[in-house]
Amino acid sequence: MNIERDHSPLYAQVEAALAADISSGALPPGSQLPPEDGLMERFGVSRTTVRKAIENLVARGEVEIRRGKGTFVAQRKIIQELTELTGFVEDMQALGRKPSARLLDKQVVPANADVARQLAMPPGSLVMRIQRARLADGVAVSFDETYLPREIGEKVVAHDLNAEPIFSLLEDKYDLPLTEAEYRLEAVTAAPDVAQALGMAPGSAVFLIERTSYTEGRRPIDYEKLHYRGDLISFVTRLARRPRARP
Amino acid sequence: MNIERDHSPLYAQVEAALAADISSGALPPGSQLPPEDGLMERFGVSRTTVRKAIENLVARGEVEIRRGKGTFVAQRKIIQELTELTGFVEDMQALGRKPSARLLDKQVVPANADVARQLAMPPGSLVMRIQRARLADGVAVSFDETYLPREIGEKVVAHDLNAEPIFSLLEDKYDLPLTEAEYRLEAVTAAPDVAQALGMAPGSAVFLIERTSYTEGRRPIDYEKLHYRGDLISFVTRLARRPRARP
Repeated sequence: MNIERDHSPLYAQVEAALAADISSGALPPGSQLPPEDGLMERFGVSRTTVRKAIENLVARGEVEIRRGKGTFVAQRKIIQELTELTGFVEDMQALGRKPSARLLDKQVVPANADVARQLAMPPGSLVMRIQRARLADGVAVSFDETYLPREIGEKVVAHDLNAEPIFSLLEDKYDLPLTEAEYRLEAVTAAPDVAQALGMAPGSAVFLIERTSYTEGRRPIDYEKLHYRGDLISFVTRLARRPRARP
Repeated sequence: MNIERDHSPLYAQVEAALAADISSGALPPGSQLPPEDGLMERFGVSRTTVRKAIENLVARGEVEIRRGKGTFVAQRKIIQELTELTGFVEDMQALGRKPSARLLDKQVVPANADVARQLAMPPGSLVMRIQRARLADGVAVSFDETYLPREIGEKVVAHDLNAEPIFSLLEDKYDLPLTEAEYRLEAVTAAPDVAQALGMAPGSAVFLIERTSYTEGRRPIDYEKLHYRGDLISFVTRLARRPRARP
């Protein structure tokens, strides 16, 4: 089947046709694209044209080339607003994705220097550490470590953390409304335990968010280290130009 | 020389003493810490105490352990606000760092699908691509690719881009005041060309910012791909809780 000869360049028409197959689900995430010869035949175009179309799809993040294996439809990336303090379940619901969680560990541990500073307590204080994988449409996208002051932590872990989001428990169950949070954003490579929880190779890129959430009275109540799979998420925001100093 | 026996735990006193040496510059970035035996003798404490202190300094990001080599003072991380549209030179000046730039390449190229969409022009349009390493206190921290519409790009590259920031040229020289920008934030691993420009190993973590800056009339005027060394930067912001839906 030849593509229609409209006025845009041939490679752009091939690109648009393949992008349409991807967005319709005819070519689902993770599936392999037909080989070049097959695409040349299907569209009645040259190899150069097919390559140019695929190159553009790679630049758009629609497909990825795995060396020696072929070209595959990329996993649908999560594009998440970074404009308000929200929890994972709220984020995924806003994007039309089905959130779920897998509790990996919960235990009382002494706070290291970092955790202690974030929760404004002396180093060595006992805190509750909760480790969960967070999934979107069944795919693990984040490995979350949550640190709570021990008293509230003991209450929170009595619930089914595969089913109940911690933000909801704090706010709705224990009357600890969240007011704001400090975010620290970093790019790191996945340590073995993080890689395993996320089903990715150690050394893969991880978007790390360290987040300290506050309740009323500017009291830090929840410190999290959120390790997102770098290949599955990007965060978007919009910033205004700073007021300029007079030259 | 023994440390003073105040009321905080011994490891916390050792930790504070070493942190003070780091911040005073007595132990500069990249330098190696004395071996455990030396620290035990200096502070008159046990190996366990020294290890606990170092563990906390690692958690705080002050030092890093290089396997088989020893413990080193970490390069001083840049902690940058992500709250307003600012350029690299403005950012570094605000942090008391000395910014500089190294022009690596400037050439007219056809816009790929991504660049074309960001600059609101047809794919294949010619644009100016400028590649620079950006340095803070002489250390390369970012590899920047800047795409400008060809006409303004030709003017910009006539200047000495090792000395003049592109934002300043656009705003002060060519009367194109920036109003706001869209940011997309991702964690990726360094491709060979990026790794080389930043003097890091391929596969290291990179904090990638794709930024489209607008001038008056919501006209996109500057599209950048900013590849920051993941080990040298973190971005901070503060977000308020989203207004909650009634349960």
